[in-house]
Amino acid sequence: MVSEHDSVVFDQGLDLECGVHLSPLRVAYRAYGTLAPDASNAILVCHPLTADQYVAEPHPLTGKPGWWARMVGPGRPIDTDRFFVICVNVLGGCMGSSGPCTARSHDDATLWGTEFPPVTIRDMVQAQAMLVEHLGITRLFAVIGGSMGGMQVLQWAADFPERVFAAMPIATASFHSAQNIAFNEVSRQAIFADPDWHNGHYREQGAVPARGLAVARMMAHITYLSEEALTRKFGRRIRHEPSGGIARGSLFGEMFEVESYLRHQGSSFVRRFDANSYLTITRAMDYFDLGADHNGDLSSAFARTPIRFCVVSFTSDWLFPTSQSRTLARALNRAGANVSFVEIDSDRGHDAFLLDEPDLDRTIRGFIGGAAEHAGLGI
Amino acid sequence: MVSEHDSVVFDQGLDLECGVHLSPLRVAYRAYGTLAPDASNAILVCHPLTADQYVAEPHPLTGKPGWWARMVGPGRPIDTDRFFVICVNVLGGCMGSSGPCTARSHDDATLWGTEFPPVTIRDMVQAQAMLVEHLGITRLFAVIGGSMGGMQVLQWAADFPERVFAAMPIATASFHSAQNIAFNEVSRQAIFADPDWHNGHYREQGAVPARGLAVARMMAHITYLSEEALTRKFGRRIRHEPSGGIARGSLFGEMFEVESYLRHQGSSFVRRFDANSYLTITRAMDYFDLGADHNGDLSSAFARTPIRFCVVSFTSDWLFPTSQSRTLARALNRAGANVSFVEIDSDRGHDAFLLDEPDLDRTIRGFIGGAAEHAGLGI
Repeated sequence: MVSEHDSVVFDQGLDLECGVHLSPLRVAYRAYGTLAPDASNAILVCHPLTADQYVAEPHPLTGKPGWWARMVGPGRPIDTDRFFVICVNVLGGCMGSSGPCTARSHDDATLWGTEFPPVTIRDMVQAQAMLVEHLGITRLFAVIGGSMGGMQVLQWAADFPERVFAAMPIATASFHSAQNIAFNEVSRQAIFADPDWHNGHYREQGAVPARGLAVARMMAHITYLSEEALTRKFGRRIRHEPSGGIARGSLFGEMFEVESYLRHQGSSFVRRFDANSYLTITRAMDYFDLGADHNGDLSSAFARTPIRFCVVSFTSDWLFPTSQSRTLARALNRAGANVSFVEIDSDRGHDAFLLDEPDLDRTIRGFIGGAAEHAGLGI
Repeated sequence: MVSEHDSVVFDQGLDLECGVHLSPLRVAYRAYGTLAPDASNAILVCHPLTADQYVAEPHPLTGKPGWWARMVGPGRPIDTDRFFVICVNVLGGCMGSSGPCTARSHDDATLWGTEFPPVTIRDMVQAQAMLVEHLGITRLFAVIGGSMGGMQVLQWAADFPERVFAAMPIATASFHSAQNIAFNEVSRQAIFADPDWHNGHYREQGAVPARGLAVARMMAHITYLSEEALTRKFGRRIRHEPSGGIARGSLFGEMFEVESYLRHQGSSFVRRFDANSYLTITRAMDYFDLGADHNGDLSSAFARTPIRFCVVSFTSDWLFPTSQSRTLARALNRAGANVSFVEIDSDRGHDAFLLDEPDLDRTIRGFIGGAAEHAGLGI
């Protein structure tokens, strides 16, 4: 299963923040475009919680277009005709990088499962940095990502200021809020409540905690949308049953369109995602607090940074509200960083960064273009 | 179990909106204070989703104070020294009124369980009206309630304008939004995902879908609070383990205080609430759309109403946002109703109506006092 995904194996392994030495370390990734001879044109795209490295091509399991195919590709805002674009499956993920679904070691083919050690956003970025070095890239031209991808962008900027020219954290925050931890916790409890969870040993039992994982996804999906988006998309429309009648009396049948939509979101997610990975990655998000990691002073995480930043938020995003992006932009300002802050007017909630938002396209294209000029990229 | 709660049995039954004739109809309630000889001083308090009739006295199962004991009692804003206060367990509930936990009929002692017919807010109000009439009350001095209780207040006003003098819908709306339906649907799916659900026949199996119901409650609880309240109450504080260490490496153990709090909310709820009732009542909320029931014109639900209204919302309530209360107040204005609208500044979210909010106390006391004067109540 692992070998289905392009990956690099680092036998030297990686020291995780939790104290565990993870060896070997497997890093699965996809790359698009051509790396310049001086390796100056590499852009790393960091994926959000439930996406993966298939950012710009059809997904091998679902056949659906890449999760950011509208943003990454020839002539797109992140232009693969000009840039060498890399996307790495995060550590703990389930698409080839070391995680609950990979083997413990060269000598032990059993899968990690629930015993995969807890990883952090910092661990994810360390693994990406090893891959980037392996590819012969000394400095990334840009690191770009939304949501949990944005957390990785910030971690890159904090940990490798000399190895990043430009950084674009989108719809994200420097820490995971109490409300977001709470939502993640409920999603984890939904998985634990599934009889097919088997304390994490579901694979050995030939089972998948599909119902629990679907509930987790359904709940999370609500938080990705705004109330306005849900109302516009579904309102209180009743789903007409195949018989043609309205299932007014059917207490447990499908009734409102929004319910039918959520059930579909839940069940289609289960086909491409692993429950232990979901638990591992949500935990990594909950841990994330870049300010706390720097003695409570977020700006010191970016002290004297040479990186050019563009912070982006969306007006109707209540999962990572604009106020958190503003806090971030202020910390960057205090650190003396070169930072611009763009709040995009959208009523589509957190998901806006994945959707057709021309203002985001323009912002990304403009920021990359300007940075490329300043970097003196002859492309 | 049923006989533990004071109730009235109506053998004539009730025609439910779904078409089922429910007979007998059992209505469990609690009353406080003394009914005036002319029965002019009755206030009906309508309870929200997961509360019950024990509004002003310790709960018989948990021993905790009544859910609105701070509002209802001698000298309290809803003053039982002056008023006769009634609180009715809603139809479909699990504290004595007809619902999944009561017997099907005099001749069939088996419990309704999952086959209890779907009920609506209107059905709930019809049952309450039968009780009120049974108690010899021709006109309620006031009907007051928050959240789903507020939906009942609105239904009372729409269906029985001559039998209510004053109405106070708090932190509520005239319809359940797509987002709220979505959250309810996820909570139902969490119950369905529990192996102890047994397709609703858990009692026959000697089981309780405790984990699913707990997940449902945990998720709902997040929606009752504001992000500010969660941050102030818990922030990102780590729960110190009894050993004294910080469980940083413990992926699935308790870590953040907010998680520990939510788990407690979930498990304590399961001890006092029935899963089938939860499903039945959330469905009733989802159905609720008073405007749609009046050909899309909410104001016509209140045409020429003689009732005095006071609509109350809270600034940080995102489950029933102020905008929905404003829509309601405007419809009442269009209907020519006597209506005041109070938006209370609070950062505690939807739950504010149940908490120590002196502005709400003053608003309720003031509205009741003024209405009592206009009603010419000599008390």
